[in-house]
Amino acid sequence: MAARFNTVCIIGVGLLGGSLGLALKSRGLANRVTGVGRRAESLDVALAAGQVDEVFLKVEEGAAGADLIVIATPAAAVFPCLDSLKLVCDPTAVVTDVASTKGDICAHARSTWSEPCYFVGSHPMAGSEQWGPEHATTTLYENSVVFVEAGGHIHPDARSAVDALWTSVGAEVVEVDPKEHDRIVARTSHGPHILSAVLAKLAAREGNVQKFIGNGFRDATRIAGGRPEVWRDILFTNGPEILEVLGDAIDELDGLKHAIEDGDSERVMDFLEDALKARREMVDP
Amino acid sequence: MAARFNTVCIIGVGLLGGSLGLALKSRGLANRVTGVGRRAESLDVALAAGQVDEVFLKVEEGAAGADLIVIATPAAAVFPCLDSLKLVCDPTAVVTDVASTKGDICAHARSTWSEPCYFVGSHPMAGSEQWGPEHATTTLYENSVVFVEAGGHIHPDARSAVDALWTSVGAEVVEVDPKEHDRIVARTSHGPHILSAVLAKLAAREGNVQKFIGNGFRDATRIAGGRPEVWRDILFTNGPEILEVLGDAIDELDGLKHAIEDGDSERVMDFLEDALKARREMVDP
Repeated sequence: MAARFNTVCIIGVGLLGGSLGLALKSRGLANRVTGVGRRAESLDVALAAGQVDEVFLKVEEGAAGADLIVIATPAAAVFPCLDSLKLVCDPTAVVTDVASTKGDICAHARSTWSEPCYFVGSHPMAGSEQWGPEHATTTLYENSVVFVEAGGHIHPDARSAVDALWTSVGAEVVEVDPKEHDRIVARTSHGPHILSAVLAKLAAREGNVQKFIGNGFRDATRIAGGRPEVWRDILFTNGPEILEVLGDAIDELDGLKHAIEDGDSERVMDFLEDALKARREMVDP
Repeated sequence: MAARFNTVCIIGVGLLGGSLGLALKSRGLANRVTGVGRRAESLDVALAAGQVDEVFLKVEEGAAGADLIVIATPAAAVFPCLDSLKLVCDPTAVVTDVASTKGDICAHARSTWSEPCYFVGSHPMAGSEQWGPEHATTTLYENSVVFVEAGGHIHPDARSAVDALWTSVGAEVVEVDPKEHDRIVARTSHGPHILSAVLAKLAAREGNVQKFIGNGFRDATRIAGGRPEVWRDILFTNGPEILEVLGDAIDELDGLKHAIEDGDSERVMDFLEDALKARREMVDP
């Protein structure tokens, strides 16, 4: 059986990029996988682990002749990467990314290439708070959801290639408008990261908390263990939504503060019952 | 071998009370376990599950002749319960509770009984977001930490009985000053509950979020599934600390908001790196 892709170039071989390389190679989906990165040590780890077949420090070398290019860097690095690819890659090479924010990135790609566009933004809801190619696994994308940019400006060949990429590594593809995507993930992913970080910071101000840490704290703060560079980029590339979520969270906390100060048991119960109901409906419907 | 306790009375037979009854009975630690509750249906569940040997709707009946009385109600109900017990129980009966706040409860007990006191406040760091006797398990307290009120005002017999209670069901006893306890758990348990509730509420305002919910959201909001009555009581019986945590959380969110508005990448990185470091030091030291 012929491989689905001839050469796949993965730019940024960390947890997501390395796992994609492993999944493609273990399933025989690509004849050749190249890896591009800035740090030779990371590339060596990815190469030794069989995540890629060849490694390059320069995008133009790794992407040369690739039919599919996957940008798996933190979000801010996707923009200059798109600019470089415009100059060096085949105009019908399909390009995608894996960043957690889509609005600005997809808009930048649309302003970079003429339509129909061979770039299709992706956001795999896969990964963990760990990072680096040493944590990559063959099964990372299995049973995950991958959000893929919706829109008629995308070349059908590019859409079908990107759909095939994700479904063939075991994911479910969900098409979504980039702005709607960013609005929702600000509330289901980015906001949780921020509040988790706040919890970790506040608890650490007290000395000797070790004995007081239970499963609740462990779970509620797990995502605060994510890579700071990745999260900085997410917060800045989803700025307006993040600011709205921060404002809404402050309002909620302030409302609860006043309810407690006023001894208003009913308002406190409403706060807690609304949250319980909301959580049940979303997570255990 | 003689049982450690003759009659143990458990007031409030829910997840914590029912699990304690099961643990005592399965280990042969009590000759008789009585259960007291307000709702006959809950008591019937506990009785049928073998969590208690006899059930009563009135404290004076269930606590009559008990050598150990465990108050396992939400925090606000502990106060009137202490008042009732003062009138009906043997003056050398040992009394403890399992509420998540200790300052006000221990102070109320000290004002209720003369010293040396037979009341010793407890807070087992056990349980989950589930509640009710139907979720009780024999092993709930195994490998958990139970905070026990420190202080020379407690009768040595009462302290040794309460220590024996918790260690014999598999927990580690940690003595702590009630006020210090409340200060720390406000940051490691109560604050996480509140922020988890805020996350659930904010996400639920968007329609159709189902596909956007990953493990991060699931974990970060798990504790928002806790019983509202229990959490209302916690928030009110730890009011001053909760208000301080809410104020500190608002300050953190406000600081991050300004850093993003200012495009101050360095301050955003500091926020994220401090949180990552804090979490690692507390949770995976």
